[in-house]
Amino acid sequence: MPIRRATEADLPTIIDLIHGLAEYEREPDAVRLDPETFRLHLFGPRPFAETLIAETPAGQSAGFALFFHNYSTWEGRPGIYLEDLFVRPELRGQGHGKALLAALARIAVERDCARLEWAVLDWNEPSIQFYRSLGARPMDEWTTYRLTGEALATLAGP
Amino acid sequence: MPIRRATEADLPTIIDLIHGLAEYEREPDAVRLDPETFRLHLFGPRPFAETLIAETPAGQSAGFALFFHNYSTWEGRPGIYLEDLFVRPELRGQGHGKALLAALARIAVERDCARLEWAVLDWNEPSIQFYRSLGARPMDEWTTYRLTGEALATLAGP
Repeated sequence: MPIRRATEADLPTIIDLIHGLAEYEREPDAVRLDPETFRLHLFGPRPFAETLIAETPAGQSAGFALFFHNYSTWEGRPGIYLEDLFVRPELRGQGHGKALLAALARIAVERDCARLEWAVLDWNEPSIQFYRSLGARPMDEWTTYRLTGEALATLAGP
Repeated sequence: MPIRRATEADLPTIIDLIHGLAEYEREPDAVRLDPETFRLHLFGPRPFAETLIAETPAGQSAGFALFFHNYSTWEGRPGIYLEDLFVRPELRGQGHGKALLAALARIAVERDCARLEWAVLDWNEPSIQFYRSLGARPMDEWTTYRLTGEALATLAGP
């Protein structure tokens, strides 16, 4: 399954795939990104993330992986954090998801990263089984906390 | 409580605080970082993380926060991910932890970040109460999966 790095010309495809992911995660209205700001964030002078595109043999976009680096102070090495992984529902079961993850694993090894990590919704059993089959382990003893909106502004102070 | 950005001269202090955190998290032998590589990762041409230092009024290091940017495709904005937050046990209860989080919240607001996020060990009740009091919400429906070592190398392929 062909995997390639996204370029600026792929921006509409990436945004379309992000909307597809939000629908799959049962939050179709959660995507608030502004396309021009997003273009800068992905392809400007200080990119916040990198994107891989999975394609069908005919060259149709089948899915994507969007990732960035995190960092482990205990390992003293960067890691890769996979923010979004999505394969169009009608193109599943053909190996696109595994090909995207394998491409990420190669990038992790090339860049001397200690880990490849991502978060999974607890109801997403098919994905969890798939991730476990690759040897991924759940960080069950950890919970992520998020501060946003008013609470974030209040803590920041005047 | 004074908070300042760490410089390269703080490297031994940062490493000492990382060891303190690992002891607190009951994994005193988990720190494998190489100081020279870590120096490059924090203060080289492509820093993987930024560090804040909390100080006592007398100028002693009391704690630290090490963070980097993540990215939300749904928001179309970066976030701040707090990898390590630690205050020396003998200097707790004096506001250093809250001052570090408030400084991070200010940076998040300045940089137009959508979120400030971090992971907490589920047994760490005092911290959880503190984070909830600030308005942080647990992402209870998500679990992080991690691929590392042999499983990561196998997926990367030959």
